[in-house]
Amino acid sequence: MIIVMKKSAAEQDIETVIQDVEARGLKANVIRGTERTVIAAVGEERIAGITALESAPGVDEVMSVLAPYKMASREWKDEQSVVRAGSLIVGNGHIGVIAGPCSVESEEQLVASAQAVKNAGASALRGGAFKPRTSPYSFQGMKEEGLKLLAAAREETGLAIVTEVVSPDDVELVSEYADVLQIGARNMQNYRLLEAVGKSPRAVLLKRGPSATIDEWLLAAEYILDGGNLDVMLCERGIRTFESHTRFTLPLATVAYAQERTHLPVVIDPSHGTGHTSLVPSMARASIAAGADGLIIEVHPDPGKALSDGYQSLNFEQFEETMAGCRKIANAVERKLGSE
Amino acid sequence: MIIVMKKSAAEQDIETVIQDVEARGLKANVIRGTERTVIAAVGEERIAGITALESAPGVDEVMSVLAPYKMASREWKDEQSVVRAGSLIVGNGHIGVIAGPCSVESEEQLVASAQAVKNAGASALRGGAFKPRTSPYSFQGMKEEGLKLLAAAREETGLAIVTEVVSPDDVELVSEYADVLQIGARNMQNYRLLEAVGKSPRAVLLKRGPSATIDEWLLAAEYILDGGNLDVMLCERGIRTFESHTRFTLPLATVAYAQERTHLPVVIDPSHGTGHTSLVPSMARASIAAGADGLIIEVHPDPGKALSDGYQSLNFEQFEETMAGCRKIANAVERKLGSE
Amino acid sequence: MIIVMKKSAAEQDIETVIQDVEARGLKANVIRGTERTVIAAVGEERIAGITALESAPGVDEVMSVLAPYKMASREWKDEQSVVRAGSLIVGNGHIGVIAGPCSVESEEQLVASAQAVKNAGASALRGGAFKPRTSPYSFQGMKEEGLKLLAAAREETGLAIVTEVVSPDDVELVSEYADVLQIGARNMQNYRLLEAVGKSPRAVLLKRGPSATIDEWLLAAEYILDGGNLDVMLCERGIRTFESHTRFTLPLATVAYAQERTHLPVVIDPSHGTGHTSLVPSMARASIAAGADGLIIEVHPDPGKALSDGYQSLNFEQFEETMAGCRKIANAVERKLGSE
Amino acid sequence: MIIVMKKSAAEQDIETVIQDVEARGLKANVIRGTERTVIAAVGEERIAGITALESAPGVDEVMSVLAPYKMASREWKDEQSVVRAGSLIVGNGHIGVIAGPCSVESEEQLVASAQAVKNAGASALRGGAFKPRTSPYSFQGMKEEGLKLLAAAREETGLAIVTEVVSPDDVELVSEYADVLQIGARNMQNYRLLEAVGKSPRAVLLKRGPSATIDEWLLAAEYILDGGNLDVMLCERGIRTFESHTRFTLPLATVAYAQERTHLPVVIDPSHGTGHTSLVPSMARASIAAGADGLIIEVHPDPGKALSDGYQSLNFEQFEETMAGCRKIANAVERKLGSE
Repeated sequence: MIIVMKKSAAEQDIETVIQDVEARGLKANVIRGTERTVIAAVGEERIAGITALESAPGVDEVMSVLAPYKMASREWKDEQSVVRAGSLIVGNGHIGVIAGPCSVESEEQLVASAQAVKNAGASALRGGAFKPRTSPYSFQGMKEEGLKLLAAAREETGLAIVTEVVSPDDVELVSEYADVLQIGARNMQNYRLLEAVGKSPRAVLLKRGPSATIDEWLLAAEYILDGGNLDVMLCERGIRTFESHTRFTLPLATVAYAQERTHLPVVIDPSHGTGHTSLVPSMARASIAAGADGLIIEVHPDPGKALSDGYQSLNFEQFEETMAGCRKIANAVERKLGSE
Repeated sequence: MIIVMKKSAAEQDIETVIQDVEARGLKANVIRGTERTVIAAVGEERIAGITALESAPGVDEVMSVLAPYKMASREWKDEQSVVRAGSLIVGNGHIGVIAGPCSVESEEQLVASAQAVKNAGASALRGGAFKPRTSPYSFQGMKEEGLKLLAAAREETGLAIVTEVVSPDDVELVSEYADVLQIGARNMQNYRLLEAVGKSPRAVLLKRGPSATIDEWLLAAEYILDGGNLDVMLCERGIRTFESHTRFTLPLATVAYAQERTHLPVVIDPSHGTGHTSLVPSMARASIAAGADGLIIEVHPDPGKALSDGYQSLNFEQFEETMAGCRKIANAVERKLGSE
Repeated sequence: MIIVMKKSAAEQDIETVIQDVEARGLKANVIRGTERTVIAAVGEERIAGITALESAPGVDEVMSVLAPYKMASREWKDEQSVVRAGSLIVGNGHIGVIAGPCSVESEEQLVASAQAVKNAGASALRGGAFKPRTSPYSFQGMKEEGLKLLAAAREETGLAIVTEVVSPDDVELVSEYADVLQIGARNMQNYRLLEAVGKSPRAVLLKRGPSATIDEWLLAAEYILDGGNLDVMLCERGIRTFESHTRFTLPLATVAYAQERTHLPVVIDPSHGTGHTSLVPSMARASIAAGADGLIIEVHPDPGKALSDGYQSLNFEQFEETMAGCRKIANAVERKLGSE
Repeated sequence: MIIVMKKSAAEQDIETVIQDVEARGLKANVIRGTERTVIAAVGEERIAGITALESAPGVDEVMSVLAPYKMASREWKDEQSVVRAGSLIVGNGHIGVIAGPCSVESEEQLVASAQAVKNAGASALRGGAFKPRTSPYSFQGMKEEGLKLLAAAREETGLAIVTEVVSPDDVELVSEYADVLQIGARNMQNYRLLEAVGKSPRAVLLKRGPSATIDEWLLAAEYILDGGNLDVMLCERGIRTFESHTRFTLPLATVAYAQERTHLPVVIDPSHGTGHTSLVPSMARASIAAGADGLIIEVHPDPGKALSDGYQSLNFEQFEETMAGCRKIANAVERKLGSE
């Protein structure tokens, strides 16, 4: 931790900071610059309240040196983690492809989708049964009935099931049916929910919140890892920026950056990341070229009639073409795509 | 709802959109421009799936005309709502002032804070017992013990209690002790939690998520109103932008804009909104000049030793001065501040 | 400058960085932490190319300790600067009020505006003769003819003239007519233009670019100061964020933050900062409560007919009311507003 | 143009808007909804001042239907434009690769760079002679001497020269030496400069401003096209967002989105777009998979010693590897890379 003193800081202010740093069990190194004094505090800096030093007299700024997360870091585990859940393999050369409708709407819709995405080479089926919706007037999902349809679709196709869980109370129920629990972007910092999935035996797909920094996202993953569940996949689905022609801004530099810092695999969601059907195929290809460990894509038999997210869903033919394009890129980077 | 067709749209595409619009119970008005055709769909546009029209052939863009929320709108209720909870009055000329520590840390800390903020003119006491913390390694709050201390502080000072609730399961417990339930920024779209507080008899302070649009925020309020709880205060606490010298960017234009659209009172949080003690007083004054209905401010006996948010907390003397400055502004705009 | 090494950095990497730091004339202090090594480089860190150290083997991050600007800093000049230009005084208790139309459109429009803003208490007249317009199809301004009308309006009202200059070649011409040269937000980093106004005898109003950090803005000011012109006013006019209900997001925390760092006065533009007429009055009041040293506001005889920026302009009556509201706030904070 | 009236709008307000719309030569279609009235104005909506309607009584919002640019649109020219400048071909299956140092620093540095990037397969050499620098204390470039070195490097290698021009006065000089004039991100809305390059016989690479919308960027291109210069390449180099682990956020969805709207080719700059050497190769590959028409990459013989942008430059070996990776992706998407 680096504590930068104001130019106007009194000697007494510097003394007080040193004492405070040492009282917290860190060692204080004082560096007197030409313009300012800097105190480098050495030791475990992930301590409750230490950033409060910023409010001490004479202090200008407090800068962290260590990453705030531990178990999620490459320093804790050097080799990349591979997550396996039924037919889905993510990491270490396997690009998992999770596809299916935003919401489970009916048996017919789901089964048709499952067959279509399987035929096109997907390795898992997505579908929402519990839907977190921005408006109370929007379709809220089929709930347990939806979970049963998902399980039936697995029965029929062999595809692993990825579905969202929105409340700690539902974790047990959803874990009975699903292979992977998805934590949605809006729940990335719902800590009770993170704690609950941390105790589940199912793998977790943790979406990045639209305004979360990568450190905050990895700290959310840390809650799950710390709870004992090591099967965590990160999912970048776009951040909120001033751009309005896309629903969110999909920063693919996340892939290489996160892979430098964490051993957890990184999945990309080009559907939410762009918000427009026509932009999904090129961003899916780009994700693979960037080195992503997986894709999650919304596919619907008839997007114009979808009860949610139709504007960003692919129909079956579009998904097949997208997979064909992705397969060429995956070959070029010598990785396996989906069910290959 | 305005549906803008592509210049290249075929007559058949236009026909299909018209049929789709009418099948959803809206009336389609077709306007043929010099460059493009536009279809204005008249009727209740808050219908599941209607935005999916964007994926139909020939459609370029779908633009909403109506606000997506209803009960939160000025059109539903024209006069401003006033929220009363014990000693706290917010709205209609009363600027409620909620002050106190980020976290309840001990009886001594809390009682001292309660007395100090009361003496300075605050109308309610804040203090976190259940803390949603970014890192699993940070202080997580005193939980029910903290709630008991808050209730004891109310006993002693008469101040209403404002405290956060982070899980639907805790709503009943927290409602027993608190006068106002706070929904934190990270839980603004935790819909289960919104539904739960919608059924509570306590007033609710709904913080804006750091990347939520105002429409999304009012839709979150709509979940609570729709649940039957009409005592909702909105709280602007800053949004995430590229600015890094402040923790968040506090957009005070929210006050006038929200007041045009909604009858719900608007409270400003200059502590989280700036993230630095030294910036709080001027932004508190500015909030009142902008027309805010309330303030929520972090105050701690010794910010440098706080277990959370010390860098943005005021000490007692700073809070007293801040209140003095705010009082002058409140007088200038002919409104009552805090316990006045 | 703090250089944070990777955990995996070899001893040789550390050595190389130390040599590089010392070769650049700085002193290297090596601090060996429990997890990482940090090198604190003491001395003048504003040196060409030093951030390139980040690309050296074993280096994780390079963090600056010193502000990158000098002459703009409080450390270079402690007392606040006051800018005087004709009837306009900005700083040190004087809140300068610059008002008038976005563009000079005709003699009639300008003279009426000048009289109206003078009567309402403004201390200077704004009006654009050279207009930087987003679209080549928009009105581009009356150019020198507009400057002449501005000078005539000064003749008649005694108000100082503030007008934009968009090209280094025009600085001399505009300086003949104007009292204050405005650098628009889109030209904040047009360094040739900054150099040119740095040599002008006229005061400068430097607008913040919509995505400029405060450091970048102060560095732009530094170009002007470094050129010999010390009469620089900063103007915050809003930044670009995900908010779309306002044209830009106006971060009033800029006032207190900038005033801590720089001696230059800070003017707020609530017209561009909000982009909607109805939001201007409350943000003008809030700016003064926040401690702003000046305001710049768009006023037009008939905003609905304005050739530019009509949606954010006040008519004369609205401006008069806005000034009345601002005057009460200025009294409350014991400062003089406009021509007082 | 769609004009949404407030629910509270009087019949007279609607009448006034209709008259205003018709006075501007558009036809007004009035659509009376269940909650609000909407007026669809048909005709050429790119008219000075029309957005001022928003300030008229009873008007809530004004929404554009037509894109604000013309010559840059696919509707003006359907087939993709190909830009050719010496050895550089961009568009229509040819992925142009522009590489070289941020600044021209010396003959030795430039010649070595030119040879290296040529050998690795680049099709043009970049190098800054006039440098727009954030700080007046940074290296400002070698100016005309730098241009001469660039021309000499072309002599020796046959590579086309891409270099920045920062002032209208320099356009003629730079055009004598360079094949492509680069407009930097900070000058994207320097309209005098855009007008000047619009009259140059050289091709133009127009960088997107870090907070410019795509519409604003295409309007900047429109200035150049409107001036008579049709050889315009767009260059996405990242936008400013809350992300701080990358220097800018590189939104690759720009590629497909822009290609839908404009015929101008789109070049990606992964160097500025990420700001870190280690992230450049994966984003270069991703750009090609996304369908980019070109790349511009910073390459330096010894990035740790570069006078500018060293932290994001590749050394020769890294560039060669990056090109090898890109070539595989280009083959997969059946396009030619660089000098192929």
